[in-house]
Amino acid sequence: MALIVQKYGGTSVGSPERIQNVARRVAKYHQQGHRVVVVVSAMSGETNRLVALTQALSESPDPRETDVVLATGEQVTIGLLSIALQELGVPARSYTGWQVPIRTDSAFTKARILSIEPERMLADLAEGKVVVVAGFQGVDPAGNITTLGRGGSDTTAVALAAALQADECQIYTDVDGVYTTDPRIVPEARRLERITFEEMLEMASLGSKVLQIRSVEFAGKYKVKLRVLSSFEEEGEGTLITVEEETNMEQPIISGIAFQRDEAKVTLLGVPDKPGVAYQILGPVADANIDVDMIVQNVGHDGATDFSFTVAKNDLKRVLEILERVKNDLGARQVIGDKSVCKVSLVGVGMRSHPGVAAKMFRTLAEEGINIQMISTSEIKISVVIDEKYLELAVRALHKAFGLDRPEADV
Amino acid sequence: MALIVQKYGGTSVGSPERIQNVARRVAKYHQQGHRVVVVVSAMSGETNRLVALTQALSESPDPRETDVVLATGEQVTIGLLSIALQELGVPARSYTGWQVPIRTDSAFTKARILSIEPERMLADLAEGKVVVVAGFQGVDPAGNITTLGRGGSDTTAVALAAALQADECQIYTDVDGVYTTDPRIVPEARRLERITFEEMLEMASLGSKVLQIRSVEFAGKYKVKLRVLSSFEEEGEGTLITVEEETNMEQPIISGIAFQRDEAKVTLLGVPDKPGVAYQILGPVADANIDVDMIVQNVGHDGATDFSFTVAKNDLKRVLEILERVKNDLGARQVIGDKSVCKVSLVGVGMRSHPGVAAKMFRTLAEEGINIQMISTSEIKISVVIDEKYLELAVRALHKAFGLDRPEADV
Repeated sequence: MALIVQKYGGTSVGSPERIQNVARRVAKYHQQGHRVVVVVSAMSGETNRLVALTQALSESPDPRETDVVLATGEQVTIGLLSIALQELGVPARSYTGWQVPIRTDSAFTKARILSIEPERMLADLAEGKVVVVAGFQGVDPAGNITTLGRGGSDTTAVALAAALQADECQIYTDVDGVYTTDPRIVPEARRLERITFEEMLEMASLGSKVLQIRSVEFAGKYKVKLRVLSSFEEEGEGTLITVEEETNMEQPIISGIAFQRDEAKVTLLGVPDKPGVAYQILGPVADANIDVDMIVQNVGHDGATDFSFTVAKNDLKRVLEILERVKNDLGARQVIGDKSVCKVSLVGVGMRSHPGVAAKMFRTLAEEGINIQMISTSEIKISVVIDEKYLELAVRALHKAFGLDRPEADV
Repeated sequence: MALIVQKYGGTSVGSPERIQNVARRVAKYHQQGHRVVVVVSAMSGETNRLVALTQALSESPDPRETDVVLATGEQVTIGLLSIALQELGVPARSYTGWQVPIRTDSAFTKARILSIEPERMLADLAEGKVVVVAGFQGVDPAGNITTLGRGGSDTTAVALAAALQADECQIYTDVDGVYTTDPRIVPEARRLERITFEEMLEMASLGSKVLQIRSVEFAGKYKVKLRVLSSFEEEGEGTLITVEEETNMEQPIISGIAFQRDEAKVTLLGVPDKPGVAYQILGPVADANIDVDMIVQNVGHDGATDFSFTVAKNDLKRVLEILERVKNDLGARQVIGDKSVCKVSLVGVGMRSHPGVAAKMFRTLAEEGINIQMISTSEIKISVVIDEKYLELAVRALHKAFGLDRPEADV
């Protein structure tokens, strides 16, 4: 019999009826003899309601007090789920972050977990109780309430699984697993049975918002077996996220195709080709707290080069303002911004040992008449920036070309 | 400069705008140099919403988990009020019950305060901060969240005032003080500048729902100066509730007229006049957890007597069922229930040294043609049960007869 940590998000606990559904699922595992720790988010809409209250009082509400307000969302859910479990005859006990305790640093609204004391939970589990823990929250060394930031409940679940040395950490969400790509674009998209942490990180950061990225990093670091499942389906194995060694030998070279619509391309033309230029360009952008995604610099000629990078679409205006100043300091020729782009990426640990993946990707896009504007590669990912009107076409063509619609995919 | 504890109820903090009003009032005291501790309730409607959620999941939700859910209401308000204070430039810091800590017993949903550690609050006050504390909640010896029951925020405020040795505990509510009687019945009803704890207890228990009765007992026991004020009026002294020695020497004999519509009269006729009868009658009633208010037994004759008492109107049916069984055991003649009654009481510490108050009360009622069905007296109160159709008439006549509409009242 296993020790399982289950996490249910806001949609899964969005009403008393849904909380009863969660309770029935937890009860099933409990009755099978498993020891179960459940982590829950605030009921859907609740965190937004609380944020709106703080913002009605201040444009920049104090982070400590914001956390005091926000932490109540999960506290309500743990009490309600415990009541629902007891109603099914399952002994259950709720814990807030400070009651566990889940110790964090004092970075209010984005705290990091420092340590978790599992003793009280283990004692309850030994007595046959289900333990229900509030996600997203903790307590700092001075006894202040902290929150981990949006999506922090995933991190709580993984951290608890690590502290309890759980056999598996199950993340219940509104999708039934991780897909080869977005099924709304490619109807043939297939649920992956397994994916590695590294692949999941690349998929997550590219817009497959199934799991909070910090929780995946955390799971990888502490070797927690992570499984993504649907809370709305009775059966289903979901997708298991594991370290690479545990994945199937028969695994495909490409696991999935991720994409990001929210990209804008910025290009500086005629940048002097000398040391320190990249920092002169990106330093002021970073100072303005703007995240830069892809960065591409071509080899120069005639002492000048072109420098391109991508940012989120709604950061473009500010970036262009910053770069107009930088352009003059640098003596660059021109700054160009383009919002009508998107990014498409192939992700797969298999490509490390398979040359030719990039070539096949570029050929596929060429056959569809899609021009590639930027290319960037990492060990397990190849990304291209293309005109956003070709996004669906590109994803569908690549999904087919790499055989992702077939269980036994190959190059 | 004084140390003041202020308590604001749910209506006073029912919206962001109202919370801003409270913040402005607190800021005024803070700017005058006072050290201020603020106790707040949940925003109006919030506790009912949370109770409804627990009851959607269980007919009798677990008390421990109910408290986990309910305690969030006040936690939201302390964060919001602290943010509103900071927005006005007033340094403020919120505390939940467990953060103070306010230690209670483990009687979930109706816990009693055992002790309060004032050190952290005093340190904040010494630094010039306003301290904002969640009412209604505490933490038990095992670290569980507890609540004090409805209206418990008043008790929190008084207990904090006692622990901090505050100069005054101000209870802000939607009325501007304690009145000689309900102004909706007697337009000439006058706000009392002062009232003793004993009088307040008699008034409160009779339906003047200005203050929670436990908080008044607590204030009397620890000699906390308690003041009831309106949170909706800018000025106003409210009503000060003090120990008797501090009240004005010129005080009136009668302080106010309380009444209770929610009374039903139960009479057993022909009860054998022997020891143990009262217990035989009221024991089963108490076992059924039904509160009995007035109890009257007349002298017997011919070995039998009549026994009457009052209960809340909606307990009458159950009481009559219980007494039908008791009647047969006792050999009493008949059980009669009457819902069409009410209770009217004169309250005043002055009556201790002034005979003739009761006679004047009875004469006043007789002159209005009102029949008295039951009479009960205590040291500072005379209560009568009358037909409920005469309630307004009786209150108005007594208010005039005892000169309560005039500042310098006398018999």
